[in-house]
Amino acid sequence: MGRETKKTQGAAYAASGVDIDAASRTVELIKRKARATFRSEVLTDIGAFAGLFQLSGYKEPVLVSSVDGVGTKVKIAIALDRHDTIGIDLVNHCVNDIFTCGAEPLFFLDYIAMGKLVPDQVESVVSGLSRACSDVGCALIGGETAEMPGLYASGDYDLVGFMVGVVERGNILDNRSIQAGDAILELPSSGLHTNGYSLVRKTFNVERSTLNTFYPELGRTLGEELLEPHRCYYPKLKRLLPRIKGMAHITGGGLIDNLPRILPDGLCARIEAGSWSIPPIFALIQQRGGVDQREMYRVFNMGIGMVLVCSPGHVEEVIASAPEARLIGEVTEGRGKERVIVS
Amino acid sequence: MGRETKKTQGAAYAASGVDIDAASRTVELIKRKARATFRSEVLTDIGAFAGLFQLSGYKEPVLVSSVDGVGTKVKIAIALDRHDTIGIDLVNHCVNDIFTCGAEPLFFLDYIAMGKLVPDQVESVVSGLSRACSDVGCALIGGETAEMPGLYASGDYDLVGFMVGVVERGNILDNRSIQAGDAILELPSSGLHTNGYSLVRKTFNVERSTLNTFYPELGRTLGEELLEPHRCYYPKLKRLLPRIKGMAHITGGGLIDNLPRILPDGLCARIEAGSWSIPPIFALIQQRGGVDQREMYRVFNMGIGMVLVCSPGHVEEVIASAPEARLIGEVTEGRGKERVIVS
Repeated sequence: MGRETKKTQGAAYAASGVDIDAASRTVELIKRKARATFRSEVLTDIGAFAGLFQLSGYKEPVLVSSVDGVGTKVKIAIALDRHDTIGIDLVNHCVNDIFTCGAEPLFFLDYIAMGKLVPDQVESVVSGLSRACSDVGCALIGGETAEMPGLYASGDYDLVGFMVGVVERGNILDNRSIQAGDAILELPSSGLHTNGYSLVRKTFNVERSTLNTFYPELGRTLGEELLEPHRCYYPKLKRLLPRIKGMAHITGGGLIDNLPRILPDGLCARIEAGSWSIPPIFALIQQRGGVDQREMYRVFNMGIGMVLVCSPGHVEEVIASAPEARLIGEVTEGRGKERVIVS
Repeated sequence: MGRETKKTQGAAYAASGVDIDAASRTVELIKRKARATFRSEVLTDIGAFAGLFQLSGYKEPVLVSSVDGVGTKVKIAIALDRHDTIGIDLVNHCVNDIFTCGAEPLFFLDYIAMGKLVPDQVESVVSGLSRACSDVGCALIGGETAEMPGLYASGDYDLVGFMVGVVERGNILDNRSIQAGDAILELPSSGLHTNGYSLVRKTFNVERSTLNTFYPELGRTLGEELLEPHRCYYPKLKRLLPRIKGMAHITGGGLIDNLPRILPDGLCARIEAGSWSIPPIFALIQQRGGVDQREMYRVFNMGIGMVLVCSPGHVEEVIASAPEARLIGEVTEGRGKERVIVS
């Protein structure tokens, strides 16, 4: 498989800040986790420099791919020295992205770069990746672990994921059938998901002691709230695909920037304020940071993780199958500059 | 297409260090460059959250993928404020990796994370990506640009690439036919490619003034030498694939670690020292850093970018088609711990 860890040995190289023994141990730890996700299409024991995945059983396969990071949420994981959930965030973000086209996940590759390679830390990150991949039947077929002293501070790391999925050409969710009168439903987020962390870190001046503070309105510590993994909507919604006309993954830019990405020209979205519940973390951030309401909606998901559009006649069926879904508005005609009106 | 730039607006968010206007401008600049690489299989104007590529014309397609970074070579680009070649390094590294399985490139996605988004800098990086993608007929179908103050210093960035290629199952280069007596040839590297930069930075204490120093033995400045892009072997070798039994991309770990990755059990490689030319940069580093010979071979490519194995009867044909190729040794039987013997 295509897992590489930049490893080299010798006294001079060690003195340059790159630890080879740690790298070798890490490769072994990771390989075990990755193998647990393999499916029959993964060709193992060949491909020393790359990952191989055989594609079969599709008539007109379209490969759907996405690359994502977790933003500065990784700084929360680092501050708390808790690394077993950040990989879940990353995989779920990717799965949701490709799922908006109607695609099912096939395989995933990761990149972890850090100032100082700590094998346990990397193993913990990969255990999250591997768990989330297994949950959606996705194979973790490769990755790169790079120790880069001088670019990352010791203890810091960045985490990047790349996912490839597939959808039959005729089943691509291309949003073209969306029309005025269609229903807009939301699936709740689990919290901030992976967006808005730079603002959060500004607001709370994040340190271990701040993160370990218990907030009664959250029912847990701030750190636990902020590390809550990005939710994955694929397992819950995949059977509903024939009923769904379009889906928007609510990430950076919030409802205001992401929902218009799936609306055909001449259409806008009318959203009823109060029709879904906004988790208390958002009020806490708004209050502490003195952030105005409009900006909150452009930085954060405000409790909405995924939006789906369907015919009004299918709303009941969607809610029966995904009981947490809420009807929040409808598609209307409109050529104004504001394409998402929350009122 | 799937190009995302974390963008958000509002006073509070700007104060947190994330610049939205810069992000929007960057998206436009990048889109133009990326579109120049599109091929007919890229489905545009759909897939707001992902990149779509239709796969057709293959009987038993195997997808071959690789994820790579450029290591701390990026620090050289940053020190010199020259960003138009680092993208070439990244794409070529990926192309070489998947090519070792016999695969042709299909599409590429990038991730650029930085402390402070500078649109011209990102455009420059993407122009390199786009140029190298075009050179091998690969579509740049998506990416993410993430401004992450607090993780990256202002001016610093990291660059990650994901490539997917394809090969017919029956044409996979699986190295299994390699046997004792086979010839080992090398294709020259253009210099360090993307490995060993942490050691280089330790040796030279890299700063702008050091990098701008002219070295007579290099015939150019140290900075020019160190930024020389990673060479791509796909265009030169693709027609020779039917003659090639195996290929090893010489990256981190050098000849000593990478060549064994393609050798079947019970075989080793006997390499004749002096049979290829070692560019002067390596002697310069060795001398300055007091690095011993053995370590040089494990950290650097020592002038060898790609190794290929073929029957002795095909050597002439390979060299006729790729005149820069040099015969450097042969595959022999051997069960010792050292699988690459340079003598």
